[in-house]
Amino acid sequence: MESRQIIRDVEARVFRIPLEEPMQDARHGLQTYFELVTAEITCEGGQSGIGYSYTIGTGGHATRAMIDHDLAPMLVGRDADEIDTLYDEMQSRLHYVGRGGIASFAISAIDIALWDLRGRVRGLPLWKMAGGAGKTPLTYRGGVDLNYPLEKLVDSVGGYLDQGFTAIKIKVGKPDLAEDVARLRAVRERIGPSNKLMVDGNFGYDLERATAAARAFEPFDLVWFEEPMEPDDFAGYGLLAKATTVPLAMGENLHTEQEFRHAFAYSSLSFIQPDASNCGGVTGFLRVAKLAEAKNIPVCSHGMQELHVSLVPAVPNAGWLEVHAFQIDRYTHRPLVVENGRAVAPDEPGCGVNFDWDRLEAADAALRKAL
Amino acid sequence: MESRQIIRDVEARVFRIPLEEPMQDARHGLQTYFELVTAEITCEGGQSGIGYSYTIGTGGHATRAMIDHDLAPMLVGRDADEIDTLYDEMQSRLHYVGRGGIASFAISAIDIALWDLRGRVRGLPLWKMAGGAGKTPLTYRGGVDLNYPLEKLVDSVGGYLDQGFTAIKIKVGKPDLAEDVARLRAVRERIGPSNKLMVDGNFGYDLERATAAARAFEPFDLVWFEEPMEPDDFAGYGLLAKATTVPLAMGENLHTEQEFRHAFAYSSLSFIQPDASNCGGVTGFLRVAKLAEAKNIPVCSHGMQELHVSLVPAVPNAGWLEVHAFQIDRYTHRPLVVENGRAVAPDEPGCGVNFDWDRLEAADAALRKAL
Repeated sequence: MESRQIIRDVEARVFRIPLEEPMQDARHGLQTYFELVTAEITCEGGQSGIGYSYTIGTGGHATRAMIDHDLAPMLVGRDADEIDTLYDEMQSRLHYVGRGGIASFAISAIDIALWDLRGRVRGLPLWKMAGGAGKTPLTYRGGVDLNYPLEKLVDSVGGYLDQGFTAIKIKVGKPDLAEDVARLRAVRERIGPSNKLMVDGNFGYDLERATAAARAFEPFDLVWFEEPMEPDDFAGYGLLAKATTVPLAMGENLHTEQEFRHAFAYSSLSFIQPDASNCGGVTGFLRVAKLAEAKNIPVCSHGMQELHVSLVPAVPNAGWLEVHAFQIDRYTHRPLVVENGRAVAPDEPGCGVNFDWDRLEAADAALRKAL
Repeated sequence: MESRQIIRDVEARVFRIPLEEPMQDARHGLQTYFELVTAEITCEGGQSGIGYSYTIGTGGHATRAMIDHDLAPMLVGRDADEIDTLYDEMQSRLHYVGRGGIASFAISAIDIALWDLRGRVRGLPLWKMAGGAGKTPLTYRGGVDLNYPLEKLVDSVGGYLDQGFTAIKIKVGKPDLAEDVARLRAVRERIGPSNKLMVDGNFGYDLERATAAARAFEPFDLVWFEEPMEPDDFAGYGLLAKATTVPLAMGENLHTEQEFRHAFAYSSLSFIQPDASNCGGVTGFLRVAKLAEAKNIPVCSHGMQELHVSLVPAVPNAGWLEVHAFQIDRYTHRPLVVENGRAVAPDEPGCGVNFDWDRLEAADAALRKAL
């Protein structure tokens, strides 16, 4: 169909990007920056594709080292369009030092670059390559706001409504459950009964506390209670689901197909939330979506809205797109488009994410100077 | 008890070490070298400890990058003797880009260095610090020999007996099960009925084939059938255990406490085989051993015999020490001691593994020149 695209070069970079204001959730402590790891694949004919992954502050350099030392030597000379084959080979090559962890981040960056390249060569946007079912996902704004005082929290969700969002998510996990309930009540009052509301526990609970929290949250008509417990506690989620009417969601910390299989088998989830930046890129995301389809579970996303905007709506079991607090829009040439409360996938060929390299370099340099 | 040991410096290195002859198993392809990642922790007072991890050829540089960029900055200035606290903090710091994978390898190297330092400061050998139950584990020689023709295979196990071993393990996983059975029969004939025999499938089977293989192996009085299937297929192991009388073992590819918990909960294992080089070092190994003790499961080991010789016998539920094919003895100052078929743990303070740095550097340089 297309001529072969022989990979000539793979170049990875790491950028630290400052957050406009520090973020806090139940488990990750205070964050002041995130890491962006980029991978550029260039072919013999000069065509290129850009992929990338994120971290929340550690692991970026390890991801780059894995791309440089373990993946690039395998990829050079290969046909970039054989994505499934290359994906499986990368997984196999890194199995002993995988499965998951940094290997998943590195594979994700490469896989996204391969899809970007394919789209550019074929003249197809990602949402069409990924299935083409749609291009305007249900969309919510996720706050990272556990450290916000109540008034600031309520103002922030009001701000999201002003920006055109009709669904929002807040963090929960205060030491005193009553404080979470008070925050939730204030937020629900602020947004009214028709806008949608989710909460995210960032695995700050054990089963007993999660059960108490879920029951206390039942009056607030939540779309879901996200990641209340350790993501590996698959059976624990199943027990929690039996104890509450609040739907459960997780997935941002599942990095391998097997982990998703465990979640589908044991965790009684109502939504799954893969992140293409850490579950194997576009290929990994679409494999999870396929597994979820067989279970009638809607596929949502975590972070990386500039890419997931093209993936979430493209599959038949489309769920919700998260619009995350990382301010990536400042460093790309197409800020996220939101119309009537829904994000809109780009139509340009490739993954539709074009970084402003000068801005990335400047931000990284300024941060390193400040640290 | 001791004065505080404040960490001043953490230095990581990567060495590629050639294998005397290429090795092959059911899933990892042909290996010609392994990677050794070392971490040296030096304290204000000049005391130091050496830790390390292995890979089978990829991930070494990513492990070093994680130590350099993500762990060293956290460790410098901290009290090296607060091992449990530092261990949990490392896990938490790397959770988003963990759990498991490269993070487990990096944490293992650091943790082993901390235990080495503690032993040197306190004048205690590892086997005493780790519990002190014993210092001469049951020991077997593990071959990596799936590519050996039958005659060479039989000769190799004869050689192990000549070296004083009374228990040996061979690889299985030939495309034709009958060939595995023929190899097993020849090996059992060669070693006689009194010496012990294990087999290792390196997750080359699915449940159906594993069941057929296990049943076909039943006449050979195996101590265990190791890792027949994907290590993440916890429930599959449970089903296999119901279908055969051959005891099951695995663990070398489990990197987190949660993964071991899943294995104990679902997999009906008769033996657990953690590897301190990838399950969190001495601390990770001992935590797994404690979990296993509650389930009455003997703790064995994978690879890294020069260190595991001090860990396996030290715990009350001691199992078997594997003597692996990596020729690490050429690069340390104390080749493994085996007496009456059992390895003997060193009594020197610390972890008892002292590398010959000149030899490591020379081997690495020669290999890089050849590649």
